[in-house]
Order: sequence, then C-alpha cells, then structure tokens
Amino acid sequence: MLTEDIRNLAIDIADLNQLKLDLNGLQPVDAGDYIAQLPQKKRAIAFRLLNKCQAIDVFEYLPPDVQEDLINSLHDIQVAQIVEAMSPDERAELFDELPAGVVKRLLQTLSPEQRQATATILGYSEGTAGRVMTTEYVRLREGLTIGEALSKIRLQDKDKETIYYAYVTDDNRKLVSVVSLRQLIFTFPDVLIREIASDRVVRVKTETSQGEVARIMKRYDLIAIPVVDREDRLVGIVTIDDVIDILEEEATEDIQKLAGVSGGDEDALSPPHVTIRKRLPWLLANIVLYIGAASAISPFQGVISQVPVLAIIMPILANSSGNVAFQVVSVTVRGIGVGEVTPKDTIPLLRKEVMAGAGTAIALGLALGTLSLIWSPPQDRWVSVIAGMVMVANVLLAATLGTLLPMGLKRINLDPALISGPLMTTTLDALGFFTFLSMISFALNVFKG
Amino acid sequence: MLTEDIRNLAIDIADLNQLKLDLNGLQPVDAGDYIAQLPQKKRAIAFRLLNKCQAIDVFEYLPPDVQEDLINSLHDIQVAQIVEAMSPDERAELFDELPAGVVKRLLQTLSPEQRQATATILGYSEGTAGRVMTTEYVRLREGLTIGEALSKIRLQDKDKETIYYAYVTDDNRKLVSVVSLRQLIFTFPDVLIREIASDRVVRVKTETSQGEVARIMKRYDLIAIPVVDREDRLVGIVTIDDVIDILEEEATEDIQKLAGVSGGDEDALSPPHVTIRKRLPWLLANIVLYIGAASAISPFQGVISQVPVLAIIMPILANSSGNVAFQVVSVTVRGIGVGEVTPKDTIPLLRKEVMAGAGTAIALGLALGTLSLIWSPPQDRWVSVIAGMVMVANVLLAATLGTLLPMGLKRINLDPALISGPLMTTTLDALGFFTFLSMISFALNVFKG
Repeated sequence: MLTEDIRNLAIDIADLNQLKLDLNGLQPVDAGDYIAQLPQKKRAIAFRLLNKCQAIDVFEYLPPDVQEDLINSLHDIQVAQIVEAMSPDERAELFDELPAGVVKRLLQTLSPEQRQATATILGYSEGTAGRVMTTEYVRLREGLTIGEALSKIRLQDKDKETIYYAYVTDDNRKLVSVVSLRQLIFTFPDVLIREIASDRVVRVKTETSQGEVARIMKRYDLIAIPVVDREDRLVGIVTIDDVIDILEEEATEDIQKLAGVSGGDEDALSPPHVTIRKRLPWLLANIVLYIGAASAISPFQGVISQVPVLAIIMPILANSSGNVAFQVVSVTVRGIGVGEVTPKDTIPLLRKEVMAGAGTAIALGLALGTLSLIWSPPQDRWVSVIAGMVMVANVLLAATLGTLLPMGLKRINLDPALISGPLMTTTLDALGFFTFLSMISFALNVFKG
Repeated sequence: MLTEDIRNLAIDIADLNQLKLDLNGLQPVDAGDYIAQLPQKKRAIAFRLLNKCQAIDVFEYLPPDVQEDLINSLHDIQVAQIVEAMSPDERAELFDELPAGVVKRLLQTLSPEQRQATATILGYSEGTAGRVMTTEYVRLREGLTIGEALSKIRLQDKDKETIYYAYVTDDNRKLVSVVSLRQLIFTFPDVLIREIASDRVVRVKTETSQGEVARIMKRYDLIAIPVVDREDRLVGIVTIDDVIDILEEEATEDIQKLAGVSGGDEDALSPPHVTIRKRLPWLLANIVLYIGAASAISPFQGVISQVPVLAIIMPILANSSGNVAFQVVSVTVRGIGVGEVTPKDTIPLLRKEVMAGAGTAIALGLALGTLSLIWSPPQDRWVSVIAGMVMVANVLLAATLGTLLPMGLKRINLDPALISGPLMTTTLDALGFFTFLSMISFALNVFKG
C-alpha cells in the first residue's frame, strides 16, 4: 500500500515545486523507490530537488545501477558530498558495484579519514563481519565518568550509525566492556563508566562469516555487535539492519539452492539470460545424471514389454521417494540454517528421521502395493508385493540420505544446501528403478522360467 | 562454539557454589540453554541458583515446556515474581502454551496493570501486530521540553523493552509524532519536544499481519514500530528482536511448505509422530493425484509394449519439467515472501519466466531429443522428435503455471506457498505423460497402422 502512494505521486515533472515538497516529505526509502522507477533521464532532475540531508539518505536506498547512473549525471561536487556523507559500509557496498575507474575517482574526492575507513572495509573478504561492519561507532575510555561520556557522545558526529551502545577500550584499543545509552542516561553523571559497563561483551572477529554474525546477534538480542581483529582490538560494529538483510539473503539462498538455482541469489525480476544461466546447468546436470538412471533401466526393456503395468508403477515409486527426500532435506537444511541443529545432533536427527521414515514408508508401501494390485492384469498381480517392498526400502533410503548428506556437508564446512532437491531426487529414482526392475526380472526368471 | 562452552560447564550439581557463579556470569540465553539441557529434576535446583535479575532474564529464554516445568516445581512466590517481571509480549506467549488452569492461577497473582496488559495482547488474533507487540513503551505529551522528557524517561521503569524511541500522543492518546533517544540527548534541554519530533511516523494497526509488520520495519530500518488501534490511538510497539524471529519463521514456512510439509512449522528435532503427521498427508495426496496421472497412462499400456524406449524417456520428461516448475515456484514464492514482487508485477514476471522458459525448453528439448535418438532402436527413432517437442511444451507450461499459480494465490490473499512443489510436479507429470503418449499413439496409428 505504501508503494501505491508513491506510484500515485505527481509524476508530472512540470510541477517541480509540488514534486520537491512531496519528495522531501517522504521517508527516504519511499523517495528512493519513486526516483528509481522514473525513466533514466528524469532521475537526476528529481534527485536534484532533494534537500541535502534528504539527498544523502535517499541515495543510500537506491539500487546500485541507479546510484551509478546518478553519479554519472550529477555534478562532481554534489557526488563528492553525498559519497563523503554515506556510512562507510554502504559506501563499500556501492564501490563494490561500480567500475574501477569511477571508484578511483570517487576515492580521491573523499576525506583521508573516510578514505581510510572505506579501504579498511574493502580489505576484508566478501561475506565476513569485516566487510559488512561500519567503522562509525562510539568508543570510550574506561576512566571517564558518565557525564564526561555523554558530553563526548554529544560532541561526536550525529550520523554515527548507532550510538545505542558505546564500547570501552583500553590504551591499546582492545575491547574491554560495553555500556548502553540506556544505562548512561539512567545513571548519575559522576559515576565512573567502569562501574556500570558490562565486561561480558559478545563480539565477533573480522573474519567471522556474516551468517554467523547474524545468528549470534539474533541469539543475544543485540542491535549492534563489536567486531575485533586478531589482537582483540575494536575495528567496527555490525548493526541490526544489516543482520536482517543477511538473514533474509541466507534464507533465500537456502530456498533457491534446494530448488536447483545455482548461487541461490536470483532476483525474481532478473533478466531472462541471468535466469537461464542460474537454472539451466542444474537441469542439464540432472539429465546427465538421468542417463545413469536410464542405463539402469535400459537392460530391462524386455521386462517392461512383458509387464507393461511397470511403466505406471515406476513413476509413482520414483516420485514418492523423491518427495520424501525433498521433505527431509528441506527440514534438515533449514534446521542447520537457523542454527536449530548442528553436526553434533546427527544421531538424534537420524534416529527421528528414520523412525518417521519407517511410518511413512509403510503407509506409502501399502498404498502403492494396493494400487498396483488394482491396476495389474490378473497374471501380473505378484508385482504389487515387490512394488510395496521396494517403496518401503526406497523411502527409508530417502530419509537416511536426506539427513546424512546435508549434515555431512555441514560437518566438513560446506554449504548443506548443495544437496539440491532435484539431484537427490534423480539419484533416488535411479536406485529405485534399478532395484525394482532387478527384483521383477529375477522373479520373472525364477517363477516364470 | 558458544554452545560448546555451556556443555562443558560443571554439570556436577554437587559443586553448587561454583555452578552458581558460572550461571550468574553467563549471558541469560546461554544460562537458559544450560538449564534446558539438564535432566528434568535438576532444572529447578540449577534455576534457584540464579540471582533475581538473572532468573527473570533467563526464564524468558527457556523453551515453553521447560518454563511450564519450572512453574510447577518452583515456589508460588518465586513464580509470581518472575511472571510479573516478564515483558507483556513474552508473558502472552508463555500463557499461550500453558494449560488454562495454570494461566488462570498465574493471572490472579499479577498486578492489575500487568494483568490488563496481558489480557490486551491475548485479545488479538495470533499472527497479528496486536499479538506480538509489547505494551511497555515510552509515551510523551507534546508540550514537554527535552529536559522534562528525559527526566520522565529516567523515572519510568528501566525494564521497558525499548526506550530508544519515545512516542508523542495528544490528549486522546492518538499518535502524533516520534522522537528518538538519540535526538533527545543531542538537543538542548529547554527545547520543546514538538520542535524536534518527526510527524512522519510509520505505524501499523493492531490487525496488521506480523509478516507485514516485519517487512515494514525492515523497509524503514526501524528498531521499533508503534501499533495503533482503529482510532489511531497508540496501544503498543513491536520491537526488532520479534521481527527477526518473524522473518525467520516465515522463511522456514516458505521452505517447508514448498517441500510439502504442511503448516511449514516442523522443528528439525520434533518427535517422529509429529513429523509423520506433517508430511504424510501430502505424500498420500500426491499418490492420489498420481492415480490421475496413471489413468492418463493406463490406456496406453499397449503403446508402451510396442515402444519400450518410452519407459526411459517418460521419467526424464516428467522429471525435467517438474524441476523447472520447482525452480520457478521457489523463486516466485520467495520473491513474494521478501516483498520483491507483488501481484502488480505478474505481467513482467510472467514475461521474464516465459522468455527464460523458452530458452530452457529448447535446450532441454534438444537434450532429450538427442538422447532418445541414441537410445531408440532404429525403427523407433521417430519417437525422439515427439519427445523433444513435448519437452518444450511441458517446460513452457511449467514456467507459466509456476509463475501464475503463486501470484494468483497471493492476489486473492492466500498463501502463495500453498503451491507445494510436489503437487505441482505431479500435475505436470500427468499432463506431460498424457500429451506424450497421445501423440505417440496417434503417430503409431497414422504411420504404422
């Protein structure tokens, strides 16, 4: 509904005064959405209507391509002002997307302090705490009083991304303790910081993965977490808004990877060629894998001619165990993703999945056995017993592999979502077909001669 | 790694003094984890070692069954103290899980104020802003100065879940504006609140769904959002820690529902019978649906006997278009989930998926055609042309349905993840088999018969 309001904004750029009022009155993210959906040529016109503070805020919310666009069409001085005012982590994110030449030009316009901050962040690998942190935070010395601390905070730049916690460091910049703004304003001004600061400071290292940072902040209900280097010196903080983005991104990755979208980072509205590049490899890999499955069936063509009801039973068998595998893999991968289970829980998890799998296997085995009985011509009814038995075995196998494979990947520090649903399904198809047809063929040889 | 430290804690309850020191020195969530994993009888012993503040904090982090357990084993007075000190939203969540008799007893021990707060929250439907909000927040009158506001905040209960924003209301308790604690401490004490408060207050209604609340807070980077009733009167706030839980819960739901786990709320380590109840219905429904697919194939048993290579081609055909459908559905459902696409984007999304689908369809059609050519005996090679064509048609259908079905469900306000992957896959199997076998059968009649 919010988006609707924006779309209804006077798009008539002729009435610039009204548009100026509207855009400066909107929340920055809404103004950003409005500007992003304008035709390319009108974006710079609309953007110039923003007053300075709003312009800086709005710029941070624009998608990278629109940001780049504006950098090319605005005056250099205006660009320099905006980029200087961005928070270091947002700026690092922007620089990641821009062509190297543009980044070089922009870096030269930055103040030495901001240039250093950006270089620090860009020095850490993607996906780590060092890369998503901001270098703007409040740092205090242990010896201060509350009153002195508050005065110091008041003197600092008001744009600090979060001043809700202040971090206390020793003479070597090592992180010692933390105090919240809440505690500061609730305590008498002449009390010493060290008397109220808590030395139980949950912290992460610069190389901690962003997913781990997010899980730790979630666990301890933090709105910011300090990031320290190997010598335990404070170098930055990660704030809660980044954590929400990280958790959403990781959930999207899990979902898409499970469905066989490589990278797990496809945007719903990305261009078709990107979509094809992300999805086709898995589909083709799957067909190649199916060649294996097919060569498992191929020698049995004679059997299928003899007992054509098999062509009906086989897809149900494959489909059901594939579905069971998909359920197990999804629950396991997500359980690992949210930190509900770790490799230590492999045994209890396997026990649970095998017990649940046994119940499921019996139900599905009976269902398939019954259906096969109904569909088979009288002389082929014996097939239904084998169908039911293979279903039970295949479902149990699905439950076991669906638990062990993601847990095993996690244990060796790989992404558990690499077990994509489709490949798992195809593998189970191949095994199921082969077992089923071998048993049928054996029975045919033994009983029918 | 954090969890490891806890597991290594002196479990030897004999050394109670050491354990007391350890437990009171831990972060509340870690102490909670330690207590939760103790044998039932030792939990109350360990819990009694906590000092009062730590006990209250730890209690909020315990899982509901352990909370219930402690309520039954601790002294009534201690229980009353803890429940009184809980934040109203956590208390409402606890009451949701407890037997009605226990809730009634606990309600009677509460102060009138806290009883009212809990009753208010429990009065709203599950999954709405009213149900997840807390009634503890800072409310100010417009006429105050900054100095008066800060004094007032200092006088209030320090346990307020968030004092980082204060909400300004008029004489009828209607929400007028918002001011951050940051603004308060940065401004001279004699300035009036109304001069610095922002009247662009993003708010939600009590009946707004929790997912919507989470998306709005994420969009505007808020750490708390005010909740108003139909008359726009302030009744509570939702805080960022709840939002993270909501977003994680919704992502888990999407993943599990797509994999055919009903409700989408299965815990990885839930007991087997719960697992079976959540998963078996979809598997059986799927087999029932497969009866449809099978009756589509059944009349063609003769055809399959004549051309046994069909039994190899058909699973690949079904499997591939099923996989395409799964990819499309997953990307679409997640895109809707994170608010990246809305029903308004149906046309561009469909255009993109059909274009990507066309590319994919041609690649897969050629692959299947080629494989069929290789596998078929010389007299059956014509089958490969039909196999390729049906693959193209089925993949395009998968792309179309995979986009339109979730978007359609969203448009009529149903959960887009209701299109579970397995049912979608089975439907496409049935259609693919029927089309394929009909065409083969037609060709056999025309050219060979």
